[in-house]
Amino acid sequence: MNVRKFTRADASMERSPGQQAGVFVGNLIDERHGGPITIGFGRYEPGQSLSETMVVDDVMVILEGRLSVETEAGTITAGPGEIVYMPKGEAVTIRSHEEGAVTAYVTYPHWRSAHE
Amino acid sequence: MNVRKFTRADASMERSPGQQAGVFVGNLIDERHGGPITIGFGRYEPGQSLSETMVVDDVMVILEGRLSVETEAGTITAGPGEIVYMPKGEAVTIRSHEEGAVTAYVTYPHWRSAHE
Repeated sequence: MNVRKFTRADASMERSPGQQAGVFVGNLIDERHGGPITIGFGRYEPGQSLSETMVVDDVMVILEGRLSVETEAGTITAGPGEIVYMPKGEAVTIRSHEEGAVTAYVTYPHWRSAHE
Repeated sequence: MNVRKFTRADASMERSPGQQAGVFVGNLIDERHGGPITIGFGRYEPGQSLSETMVVDDVMVILEGRLSVETEAGTITAGPGEIVYMPKGEAVTIRSHEEGAVTAYVTYPHWRSAHE
């Protein structure tokens, strides 16, 4: 596989699987490409929340807006240029604020395969 | 390990190992933390270049400035909010432009262990 560049326009956004919230994900690289990691862009509409127990190690880089992540240990809030690391096994609630949010994400292993 | 948030101030920057270029990396999560991936921030001074053959799968999210990545297949240039994926085994030359660049990176597996 060659070196690739991705912009937001490259991602086909779909509702985050198993969720009714206004949270959308678009994989760019995943289990279809033969590598070990999934790469994509995420988009959170304003005032959304999504709860899950992580089935993969997940890194979000906040590109626009803000996201808060609640766990038993407390709540962190991150904005543009900041990174949130959600290790496998952690129970999280991710909340967007009034401005919504855009993220880039990387997971190991592939989250779609791990959810099946 | 708990959910963590990182800002650029959290990273201790060091010169990219084995290179003389003005390219600096700061791991935030790596082989010391027990997980499968390395996470960090990178900083490229203006007009630098760095050549290597990838020993890990490496994802760069451009936060500031621009980077060009040359391979046998051609050259791609990425700016803020864009993602560059450099698969393991690819020979790349990464070049910064006059404004330098800042990145967030994620690698699988850990690049420091893979270089040893």
